[in-house]
Amino acid sequence: MATNEIYQYSIMSGLIDGVANDGLPIQTLLTHGDHGLGTFRHMVGEMIVIDGHVFQMKSDGSIVPIDLNTCTDITPFAMITRFQPTQHTKAVIPSKKDFTRILGELTPKARNLFVAFRIDGMFKSVTVRTADGQRFPGERVIELGKRQVTHVLEEVRGSLIGFRSPGYTQGVSVAGDHLHFINTERTLGGHVLGFETEEEVHIGIAVISKVHLELPTDNSQFNEAALELDASSIHKVEG
Amino acid sequence: MATNEIYQYSIMSGLIDGVANDGLPIQTLLTHGDHGLGTFRHMVGEMIVIDGHVFQMKSDGSIVPIDLNTCTDITPFAMITRFQPTQHTKAVIPSKKDFTRILGELTPKARNLFVAFRIDGMFKSVTVRTADGQRFPGERVIELGKRQVTHVLEEVRGSLIGFRSPGYTQGVSVAGDHLHFINTERTLGGHVLGFETEEEVHIGIAVISKVHLELPTDNSQFNEAALELDASSIHKVEG
Repeated sequence: MATNEIYQYSIMSGLIDGVANDGLPIQTLLTHGDHGLGTFRHMVGEMIVIDGHVFQMKSDGSIVPIDLNTCTDITPFAMITRFQPTQHTKAVIPSKKDFTRILGELTPKARNLFVAFRIDGMFKSVTVRTADGQRFPGERVIELGKRQVTHVLEEVRGSLIGFRSPGYTQGVSVAGDHLHFINTERTLGGHVLGFETEEEVHIGIAVISKVHLELPTDNSQFNEAALELDASSIHKVEG
Repeated sequence: MATNEIYQYSIMSGLIDGVANDGLPIQTLLTHGDHGLGTFRHMVGEMIVIDGHVFQMKSDGSIVPIDLNTCTDITPFAMITRFQPTQHTKAVIPSKKDFTRILGELTPKARNLFVAFRIDGMFKSVTVRTADGQRFPGERVIELGKRQVTHVLEEVRGSLIGFRSPGYTQGVSVAGDHLHFINTERTLGGHVLGFETEEEVHIGIAVISKVHLELPTDNSQFNEAALELDASSIHKVEG
């Protein structure tokens, strides 16, 4: 796949409905890019793909580097790109909400397009959550969300990997900004609910207009899911 | 592109909002497939792509074969595939609604996937409409719909080209069955609102799990469109 195109496996509404038994081998996912996010079988933890390396960030606080030579896990949902930022800037980002505004100002022609981004530097705080995994096959995200573990990481250096998806993709993707964080030591991280920087951090951006969507086949759980748009559930669990 | 993958240019909500000034050259569209449907600049008529040939079906009843060597027109919205049916069957189809049921029965594992299909044979009737084009740039589909010309073609031999898109894609695609018709002589056709066969017709089907979406760039009209999901408008104009 060319640079700055998104490959997405399955749809967000599938996760919302608890479709997480089967999916794409992690190795196959990694053939499509080097920068991404997603989850694992049965939603055990959060996935971050950074510089082509995959990490599983678990609710017990552990960060497991995935060895592609031995990994047998799959992803039921992931977005990935071969990231080559076309814009670079530095900014102080007082909050996740401010980042939404800043990114919008930096990409005025991408109101209805996708954006891939990466933020590197020193963070005053990052509030992360990690899904602890389904307790039974098909458990819905809204139930996992009630048990989700939230940590506030303070004075932490690391990277945010994320995608902005246009509003009309809600249900297929996560409309708005979807970010995962990992620290430089690769020992802390998760799905980002909020963050704050006091000093300037580096922001790399690529506007994306080509998306390759692959849907699960021979997957009875996906085939039978209602997959109705449930924007409030997505908002609740994805922040 | 491999066979039985969909290439889609722009999104249905764009058309709904009247985004039709600019788009993809028809020649470029045809590099992605040989079986498809869409529209033209300013929504002048309905597009059908059959066996790699493109026709513009206009509201005055004329059918214009597009010469790819000289064509300067663009498409603001189209779906196309390199169609290679993996299932063939014959059936009497009493109505468009019955076809929805028949196709569902033929593709039980594709409830949440896309399906490309083609129906060939003798039709007792086909009710078609053709958009007459925007009267000013940005005119919304709902306004064009009020002027749309409807014809009932009777005892006509020809081909239906279509796609089934899953419900969760409403707004991005046209959820449900989207069909265009052209007769064997290539003199009659349009967007299909209804049809009926009394004798058996041939149905070719391919289930599709990979979709390549390309969004308009450097297109201020698309960039500024609200693109909110308007399922009732889509239903009104797409039948």
